[in-house]
Amino acid sequence: MCRLMGYLGSPVQLDRLLNKPEHSLIIQSYEPREMTSGVVNADGFGIGWYHLHHQTEPYTYKSTLPIWNDVNLPSLSRYVETGCVLATVRSATTGQALDLSNCQPFQHRLILGTHNGFIADFRQTLYRPIRDRLDDIAYQAIRGSTDSEHIFALVINELEANPDLSLLEALHRALTLLRKLAADQQISFSANIILSDGQQLVASRFAERTATPSLYWLRDDPLFPQAVLIASEPLFSSNWVSCPEHSILTVNHELDIQIHSI
Amino acid sequence: MCRLMGYLGSPVQLDRLLNKPEHSLIIQSYEPREMTSGVVNADGFGIGWYHLHHQTEPYTYKSTLPIWNDVNLPSLSRYVETGCVLATVRSATTGQALDLSNCQPFQHRLILGTHNGFIADFRQTLYRPIRDRLDDIAYQAIRGSTDSEHIFALVINELEANPDLSLLEALHRALTLLRKLAADQQISFSANIILSDGQQLVASRFAERTATPSLYWLRDDPLFPQAVLIASEPLFSSNWVSCPEHSILTVNHELDIQIHSI
Amino acid sequence: MCRLMGYLGSPVQLDRLLNKPEHSLIIQSYEPREMTSGVVNADGFGIGWYHLHHQTEPYTYKSTLPIWNDVNLPSLSRYVETGCVLATVRSATTGQALDLSNCQPFQHRLILGTHNGFIADFRQTLYRPIRDRLDDIAYQAIRGSTDSEHIFALVINELEANPDLSLLEALHRALTLLRKLAADQQISFSANIILSDGQQLVASRFAERTATPSLYWLRDDPLFPQAVLIASEPLFSSNWVSCPEHSILTVNHELDIQIHSI
Amino acid sequence: MCRLMGYLGSPVQLDRLLNKPEHSLIIQSYEPREMTSGVVNADGFGIGWYHLHHQTEPYTYKSTLPIWNDVNLPSLSRYVETGCVLATVRSATTGQALDLSNCQPFQHRLILGTHNGFIADFRQTLYRPIRDRLDDIAYQAIRGSTDSEHIFALVINELEANPDLSLLEALHRALTLLRKLAADQQISFSANIILSDGQQLVASRFAERTATPSLYWLRDDPLFPQAVLIASEPLFSSNWVSCPEHSILTVNHELDIQIHSI
Repeated sequence: MCRLMGYLGSPVQLDRLLNKPEHSLIIQSYEPREMTSGVVNADGFGIGWYHLHHQTEPYTYKSTLPIWNDVNLPSLSRYVETGCVLATVRSATTGQALDLSNCQPFQHRLILGTHNGFIADFRQTLYRPIRDRLDDIAYQAIRGSTDSEHIFALVINELEANPDLSLLEALHRALTLLRKLAADQQISFSANIILSDGQQLVASRFAERTATPSLYWLRDDPLFPQAVLIASEPLFSSNWVSCPEHSILTVNHELDIQIHSI
Repeated sequence: MCRLMGYLGSPVQLDRLLNKPEHSLIIQSYEPREMTSGVVNADGFGIGWYHLHHQTEPYTYKSTLPIWNDVNLPSLSRYVETGCVLATVRSATTGQALDLSNCQPFQHRLILGTHNGFIADFRQTLYRPIRDRLDDIAYQAIRGSTDSEHIFALVINELEANPDLSLLEALHRALTLLRKLAADQQISFSANIILSDGQQLVASRFAERTATPSLYWLRDDPLFPQAVLIASEPLFSSNWVSCPEHSILTVNHELDIQIHSI
Repeated sequence: MCRLMGYLGSPVQLDRLLNKPEHSLIIQSYEPREMTSGVVNADGFGIGWYHLHHQTEPYTYKSTLPIWNDVNLPSLSRYVETGCVLATVRSATTGQALDLSNCQPFQHRLILGTHNGFIADFRQTLYRPIRDRLDDIAYQAIRGSTDSEHIFALVINELEANPDLSLLEALHRALTLLRKLAADQQISFSANIILSDGQQLVASRFAERTATPSLYWLRDDPLFPQAVLIASEPLFSSNWVSCPEHSILTVNHELDIQIHSI
Repeated sequence: MCRLMGYLGSPVQLDRLLNKPEHSLIIQSYEPREMTSGVVNADGFGIGWYHLHHQTEPYTYKSTLPIWNDVNLPSLSRYVETGCVLATVRSATTGQALDLSNCQPFQHRLILGTHNGFIADFRQTLYRPIRDRLDDIAYQAIRGSTDSEHIFALVINELEANPDLSLLEALHRALTLLRKLAADQQISFSANIILSDGQQLVASRFAERTATPSLYWLRDDPLFPQAVLIASEPLFSSNWVSCPEHSILTVNHELDIQIHSI
């Protein structure tokens, strides 16, 4: 389990997303409210963001420390201004290493992705079957050893094979393959995922044979006008909407929201 | 706030103290039960132990990671066998750096010491007054910036000035000076401290103008015969005895326990 | 010994300063050419920079890893654009801890500072005398334990006592006091220092009773027009000028350079 | 490139191997003499050792810091006494992550192994072909992403498939397969490897289409009587013998040395 958030909209200082909210990711790292497993999210964290003006590869900042202990984050949060950001505080599954390579969000070219959930007994179940289905580019791009990165690799594999595919379609295909592989072995998994290419957010709330983790969205809040927020837990009291289970939420550049059943 | 433990007695594998108990320090790091402030103890940890056969300076192992994330601890815990050990999981006071130099236990020659508690607004209150009262040896020995290390320095200062002083007497004098300095500024502090020289444990449970943190001891438990355990929270269900507030507990090499009012 | 650099001038991407030069700080970290002591500069690093448009406190990024191993630096270097930056790769004096609190540059309000050099046997010589001369603000602002930070504290002490003092004058007074304290004990020190407030660079090249470390400057190079660079070693082949020993170099916002004998 | 050492013989304090020699691994980390590529070995380090009396799984200690910066190593080196140890200071190939999972020595059940060398363009060449040849146990045991760990996996794969195989034979078969895979793509590799099970050392000096890294051994030196040392570079001036290229050296429990051509 991890806690995730995504933001798309008018320019915002990172500080306002990470530190200011009353139930920010920093608070969620030591006092989360809706975890389906695990107790704290103190196994590192990561942030990925896009440039306000230039369409270049996104930027990432990662650490294996609890987010509240990072000495650089206050400076970075004051400095970064962005219209599109993903962030994660990690709760590592037992047995998965604390390596920086395992910190999310993952990046591949213009794409950022982050995952909250798990594949049951990953190393003994879908680790090898997933890898065996990857083309060389996605295979060689894997840097760490987590289930999360391997699910991200399934998405990247679709995009590399079909460059014109939408993020929505790539995520849908990846989840469909994951379902099939999991069904073969009758194992459980959960896959709350947020993806972005800097122009849109695409997020799934999905699980099979286990509880579906929570996921919420909020649009045009007075605190964040002209913006959409997606988060594992509401960052502050407002009219957050719970995403339906077994669905994919898309937010385009005009902040239109659509919900697609899986 | 931190969570502490000390052990004196027949040889034991570190593993049996750190990992095996149902409410071990590892569990206490993310699910403590009796904290008077703070939520988790994930700001690093440290262990100090004495050699079973040689009377040499003790050994320490420290990390700024949460104790559950350290990849070396399982090996170390299997390897180390000792008759005297102190251990701490840290909850850093806001504003105190995560530096390794701030990890406990602290060591000076044969002495190990660890502290659970705080001095209110330390940097603005007793930081300078404590340092000003230290002789050069204790002054120059300070490596970090915590209130905990400065209280330890007060003990070391007494021992360096009076090499024949007992640990009990050194701790008593240090606390007496700390009380006086705190009274001058009418500030609160708490000082649960465990000290050792490898032959004995000396532990205080003490606070002024604030709640006194919990501290327990246990002797000759079936799980740890011929041994005394001291801990912020019971490590497992047994006949743990709550140390009286405002007192110092001493455990000598024969495992005799005495309680001294402060 | 460390390797330092400072930049003041037209906006530049951090990447062009840190990674692109043929003898960049990254190269200097493992293959320095003009060290007067030490072999590599692999004991952490730090960067401090000012915002291009807003006059706010500067931003810092620090790590205890060798600069070539930091996974976040490539993103940060691509993202940050600035007209004023200081950077350091550290070679820790034996016995000085690798703590993040000991990483440079140091910051106090609008001021950044970084130091290359040493005070001989610092802990046993000027550690306490320097602290004893500090007012409470500078005293309490010290976070680590290095000679470098204590020299920086001398500068801050002057500025806090005399808010109208120029950086040049504050540095001059700090060095004068340092000379006196060192003369009292007949100990050696070296103090190549770069300071900034975002509008100017002030740099000393100074030592007593030991070799003076190298320091160079370069103005209006074709690669960096409308800018001044200061560095321990030339970052690339060009018309770098060696700063005179025992002097302070000032670069104002119009990039006028003046040299003042100490 | 990395620098390796192995020790088998009468009990020795780790300190005497790691710190005392005039050209110890600590010195070799910043001033190596015989590197065929790279400049320093400051990308982490690791130690693996066996218990003096109990035949249990070995113990490991790893860090991503330069070996000279580790605060725990002095204590550990004073504490550990062993008759069999492997140690490595790492020089990471460009692009290979600094993760702890990538620190050597690697361990699998009773076996420790460490590798100095490289597979050219590993991720694009033999990464996938090696993995495809592994049985599930060796496949799932891989924790990191280095060429070194994948070569170790080839050895483990042989041992898991044939539990009665000698370490010599397992290493020989692994190198034979590696040669074949490298020949298929006409790529270069070097594979200086030291293996142990606590009772013997088995070490290869081998490369194809590139320079063979150095490897030396020394037996019954006055400083280390009744012991064999193997090292990338002599640890001190003595009668070190250069291992022949393209060979495997075996040292059994009686310290008999045999050399086998590959």
